[in-house]
Amino acid sequence: MTKATGGESVTLDLLKEKTAEFAKERNWDQFHSPRNLLLALVGEVGELSEIFQWRGEVPRGLSDWKEEDKVHLGEELSDVLLYLVRLSDICGIDLGKAALRKVGLNAIKYPAAGKGSSEQT
Amino acid sequence: MTKATGGESVTLDLLKEKTAEFAKERNWDQFHSPRNLLLALVGEVGELSEIFQWRGEVPRGLSDWKEEDKVHLGEELSDVLLYLVRLSDICGIDLGKAALRKVGLNAIKYPAAGKGSSEQT
Amino acid sequence: MTKATGGESVTLDLLKEKTAEFAKERNWDQFHSPRNLLLALVGEVGELSEIFQWRGEVPRGLSDWKEEDKVHLGEELSDVLLYLVRLSDICGIDLGKAALRKVGLNAIKYPAAGKGSSEQT
Amino acid sequence: MTKATGGESVTLDLLKEKTAEFAKERNWDQFHSPRNLLLALVGEVGELSEIFQWRGEVPRGLSDWKEEDKVHLGEELSDVLLYLVRLSDICGIDLGKAALRKVGLNAIKYPAAGKGSSEQT
Repeated sequence: MTKATGGESVTLDLLKEKTAEFAKERNWDQFHSPRNLLLALVGEVGELSEIFQWRGEVPRGLSDWKEEDKVHLGEELSDVLLYLVRLSDICGIDLGKAALRKVGLNAIKYPAAGKGSSEQT
Repeated sequence: MTKATGGESVTLDLLKEKTAEFAKERNWDQFHSPRNLLLALVGEVGELSEIFQWRGEVPRGLSDWKEEDKVHLGEELSDVLLYLVRLSDICGIDLGKAALRKVGLNAIKYPAAGKGSSEQT
Repeated sequence: MTKATGGESVTLDLLKEKTAEFAKERNWDQFHSPRNLLLALVGEVGELSEIFQWRGEVPRGLSDWKEEDKVHLGEELSDVLLYLVRLSDICGIDLGKAALRKVGLNAIKYPAAGKGSSEQT
Repeated sequence: MTKATGGESVTLDLLKEKTAEFAKERNWDQFHSPRNLLLALVGEVGELSEIFQWRGEVPRGLSDWKEEDKVHLGEELSDVLLYLVRLSDICGIDLGKAALRKVGLNAIKYPAAGKGSSEQT
């Protein structure tokens, strides 16, 4: 199994393994159909939105937020990510590979100013 | 910069760097406020939902989907991920670290059957 | 003020008045900016999705649902509606008028089979 | 059938009839299962969010918006409403009745300042 040690960056494959293991250990695989997971993801996006809903614009870095609100935000962002990773896995999509491919497609769709290609860094 | 070579697993940090670079090269940082990015994410979740909306239940692995529909799905899943990564970055949240922490919290909240702790594998 | 008596059908204008009054009486107008309301709506759509997330397909009419679950569903559908009505009001959009116009546009976009126009009833 | 003449306020029942008729005339009833409609609603909420995503805060009344953008907004708000009405109908929920009931519940949950009850107007 992929390891995440202190200083290493978390991979999408690690999260995929973690969420698959989590579901298996609880016998939750039976509930993890694509559309169930998609609706669960929508539910988490709702919870993420609730954090921002009455605040008006918020500054980058959330400099004026309380530490506990930032922790809460990290949890809701994570919930969205974990369902996204799980949904991708259940659909047989390699999310990391797809994301890198999409960054490439976006670079073609929206060329960077003054460059032949935005990939050219 | 973090590299993603053929066989390696994609890290959240790599995607963070890629999206930050992408925005910088296009002078889009000015648009990437937390709530702008959140609404963009909601927009992408909408596009993801549209793929599934008229299909009724779909099988795991999407065995009966056309290849092009799977590719399209991968793109929409990626769009959600890329905005999620960017939103986290702009909010100063380490998404990978937060996600691993959340998996741990979930394991405490929902103990695996027949185990003291679901982390104990 | 518009009245809703027992047998009459509820109008969008009545709900607009009710939600405007509700906000005014609580001094909540200050929080009801367009994007705040939009995010609140997204939050409610999330709660609506949570009701359906682990159920797989559900039958029309929800024949096998418990009465309390149907009541709960009615509440979440209402929350979405109330924020939608309020958002429209704050944006200066006549939602009822816009909805009738949209039905007409949809009828042009998707002509009914065997008809010159689907409005022709 | 309920009529909407020039000066009258649009009722939820009218929209329910319109959307039911619309689906029937196109033989779309077969696609209008609860979860299909819910995902279609999420798709429309995504399109609504896209209108607001890169704008930062917007003023009430959208005073600085172009007329065509307001018209577009009216269309997306309507799409959300029409699917919400249709979803409620297919689930056997009387949306207007539920919404009035919810306003009452909200008034109990959040009493207006200086009043025994916010319904007391």
